Amino acid sequence: MEPRNATVAVVGAGDFIGAAIAKRFAAEGFTVFAGRRNGEKLAPLVAEIEAQGGRAVGRTLDARQEDQITSFLAEADATAPLECCIFNIGANVNFPLIDTTERVFRKVWEMACYGGFLTAREAARLMLPRGRGALFFTGATASLRGGPGYAAFASAKFGLRAVAQSAARELGPRNIHVAHLIIDAAVDTEWVRQRIAAREGAAVLETLEPDRLMDPASVAETYWQLYRQPRDAWTFETEIRPFGEKW
Amino acid sequence: MEPRNATVAVVGAGDFIGAAIAKRFAAEGFTVFAGRRNGEKLAPLVAEIEAQGGRAVGRTLDARQEDQITSFLAEADATAPLECCIFNIGANVNFPLIDTTERVFRKVWEMACYGGFLTAREAARLMLPRGRGALFFTGATASLRGGPGYAAFASAKFGLRAVAQSAARELGPRNIHVAHLIIDAAVDTEWVRQRIAAREGAAVLETLEPDRLMDPASVAETYWQLYRQPRDAWTFETEIRPFGEKW
Amino acid sequence: MEPRNATVAVVGAGDFIGAAIAKRFAAEGFTVFAGRRNGEKLAPLVAEIEAQGGRAVGRTLDARQEDQITSFLAEADATAPLECCIFNIGANVNFPLIDTTERVFRKVWEMACYGGFLTAREAARLMLPRGRGALFFTGATASLRGGPGYAAFASAKFGLRAVAQSAARELGPRNIHVAHLIIDAAVDTEWVRQRIAAREGAAVLETLEPDRLMDPASVAETYWQLYRQPRDAWTFETEIRPFGEKW
Amino acid sequence: MEPRNATVAVVGAGDFIGAAIAKRFAAEGFTVFAGRRNGEKLAPLVAEIEAQGGRAVGRTLDARQEDQITSFLAEADATAPLECCIFNIGANVNFPLIDTTERVFRKVWEMACYGGFLTAREAARLMLPRGRGALFFTGATASLRGGPGYAAFASAKFGLRAVAQSAARELGPRNIHVAHLIIDAAVDTEWVRQRIAAREGAAVLETLEPDRLMDPASVAETYWQLYRQPRDAWTFETEIRPFGEKW
Repeated sequence: MEPRNATVAVVGAGDFIGAAIAKRFAAEGFTVFAGRRNGEKLAPLVAEIEAQGGRAVGRTLDARQEDQITSFLAEADATAPLECCIFNIGANVNFPLIDTTERVFRKVWEMACYGGFLTAREAARLMLPRGRGALFFTGATASLRGGPGYAAFASAKFGLRAVAQSAARELGPRNIHVAHLIIDAAVDTEWVRQRIAAREGAAVLETLEPDRLMDPASVAETYWQLYRQPRDAWTFETEIRPFGEKW
Repeated sequence: MEPRNATVAVVGAGDFIGAAIAKRFAAEGFTVFAGRRNGEKLAPLVAEIEAQGGRAVGRTLDARQEDQITSFLAEADATAPLECCIFNIGANVNFPLIDTTERVFRKVWEMACYGGFLTAREAARLMLPRGRGALFFTGATASLRGGPGYAAFASAKFGLRAVAQSAARELGPRNIHVAHLIIDAAVDTEWVRQRIAAREGAAVLETLEPDRLMDPASVAETYWQLYRQPRDAWTFETEIRPFGEKW
Repeated sequence: MEPRNATVAVVGAGDFIGAAIAKRFAAEGFTVFAGRRNGEKLAPLVAEIEAQGGRAVGRTLDARQEDQITSFLAEADATAPLECCIFNIGANVNFPLIDTTERVFRKVWEMACYGGFLTAREAARLMLPRGRGALFFTGATASLRGGPGYAAFASAKFGLRAVAQSAARELGPRNIHVAHLIIDAAVDTEWVRQRIAAREGAAVLETLEPDRLMDPASVAETYWQLYRQPRDAWTFETEIRPFGEKW
Repeated sequence: MEPRNATVAVVGAGDFIGAAIAKRFAAEGFTVFAGRRNGEKLAPLVAEIEAQGGRAVGRTLDARQEDQITSFLAEADATAPLECCIFNIGANVNFPLIDTTERVFRKVWEMACYGGFLTAREAARLMLPRGRGALFFTGATASLRGGPGYAAFASAKFGLRAVAQSAARELGPRNIHVAHLIIDAAVDTEWVRQRIAAREGAAVLETLEPDRLMDPASVAETYWQLYRQPRDAWTFETEIRPFGEKW
């Protein structure tokens, strides 16, 4: 692995997709700047990347706070030029419309949409003067469909997609690649396995084919391929799902 | 005109679309409850409706305030059962992403999306026990497309559309008709005419065909036809534009 | 009913939607020109319209034959100016992709897409010199989604939708209203009831709410409302479904 | 390059995208089966691949002929198992609706849609017994939008997209990866450069940035990355365009 003079910032570096992205880009020589609400939980990820000879920094980050996003990305950029920024915060909740509190609706939006706007704007401000960069957003089924019980979550994810579209149309001609990746399936996490067990019985998990759920590493690989695209053939939007998924 | 024991609430009863909706439903015998930020501006509308033999109430309403939405709709429902509720607040702004302030992004969302959520939830709470009602949302081109400069506005309108979709899927089977009307064009207002003059020269306005811009009354008529649909053939989404519009 | 000097042509005037459209427009004074593969089956429809004081002509029409479409519409237009033309041919089949014969794929396309193209072009040729008219297309769930087993049907319906879009963009500015109506549900026909009985048991039909299936008259009413739209607020696409439909 | 016991079939192996795909997969050790209307024009491509140590076969193929598709793919599969099949026939024409002849509408459909159906079905028949394979389709801007003058072309491309969707939903759970790649831009070909010169003047070509048009090799690379996706994260649809493209 050849180190690069380039940073990837991961806003929302949770244990699954976010961590996988961090490792994938670290393996390509990027310095990783990883942010999540409880930064101390990033210690194992940082240690793992460093054990592989990579470089990583973990920071506590509340993406709903403008000044925190600004300083997180500025610090990342000061370490090595911010080459790629990935916004990966979800906030999947399900409540009937009439039981959705003002607080839930607002919080989900702040995390999943407003934080994405702040990230996009601050990353753009750092990338535009250099005339290069990549800015990616993690979407979901709810980015395209407002299902029952998803007024809050779908509203935030729809809103994030609009930010990504506007950013793509503004920044693409200035050599910044903006993409929106729709994950149209459950990612393989402990929480998802528990939900499946609760819904269909624990026995189902025994017989679940190994690639019936999405491996976070596969999401990370998709981002890496998006990053590698030459600029004459940039993707704005793509969706991924396991082979057996209904859609 | 036969008076009905039914109220239509218009959240965002501006001088153009909102006022036209109010008059259209008043002409069908509905009691109109009209809310806008400066309620005193509603006096001419109320007077006009009353002069036609209709009933109308104007209220100052900040749709971003949960308690105001709650009391506005409760008062409407207390006057006569809330039969139809139309959310009609826009907040069309255009700024480059990097010049979009936190304040603008949040305010546009609060007006155009969050207020719509509050309206939907409170209207649903009133309508569900009776098992009937209609809940309509005004959309725009930016509900489907995040164009350059529209990160804030499109994000809010995308988000509102998701609320409408979720509401439709939850409430339709319970006999509440939810619809989202996309106005894919400029509506004929003084402000729009000024923008056209600024962009293309004042002379253009002289030769503008009379129906090249959308008459607010036509939007109101579309809502009225949506309201009249039998429940075996409800529309969730439709779009309208003038015959000469490019799309 | 005041007679008008205007014809509505219904291409695909089957016993349900097509017949309902014919009756709806006849009730507004239009001369109805109804075409279907077995023209003799139109006798009861013509008789019913005439018994109501309307005017109707039934013709045998294979919409896959260019000369038949041309002469059908020319004859319609010669009777009274062709004011509205509605293409309403479906061809709903379901086969696994690997069992779809060349003959089925081609025939479904010829009926549901190619016939629509011919209808659109010939109607446009008659309407453009007068600078007015309306051209409507019946769509389906399969116009937007290629589900399993629907390679042939969805391909034809997608293709028809493209014809309608192109026609709308070309003809709208020339004062011809083009619309595409998506019927996202089963229409109440004997065949649909048999399918439900086969799938869920005959007992289900006993308890089926009366407006759980779509009444063909509701489709016809939707078309009538589309026809009545003023040209400053034309709809291109809208969808209808019963209140209880999952989507 | 390690030879594989696997064939890629390219239906519509023209000088640009098709040839680039052939070379990309040949470089990965695939045996290439390339088909186009004038098979003799494939000689240089075959020679180039062989000069690089690869294996390629060129065949004359009219994709509108069922028996030709069947025997082309059967021969490909007999050489080495058909692992990947790419349908890449376009038929871009632009005529006003009223000037679109029956012959043009039908021919464009036969080439761009019907040929795709035949290819999908025959490839599926070969792949299903082995329970593996990839089936890709080249889409265009007109796959999603019926612009003025594109009734014939968009109708065929919409129709092809429906075939791809149905195929994906049927075959995905059986381990066959179906994808639809939307090329939302002009690909860099002599014909495209001539069109640009005709429209904007020859001088424009002098100053055209080298990656302002899409390199066919970038399309091929996109297909290669789609092929490489693990089955827990398959893409059905993605779109590519140059960084400076308006959309």
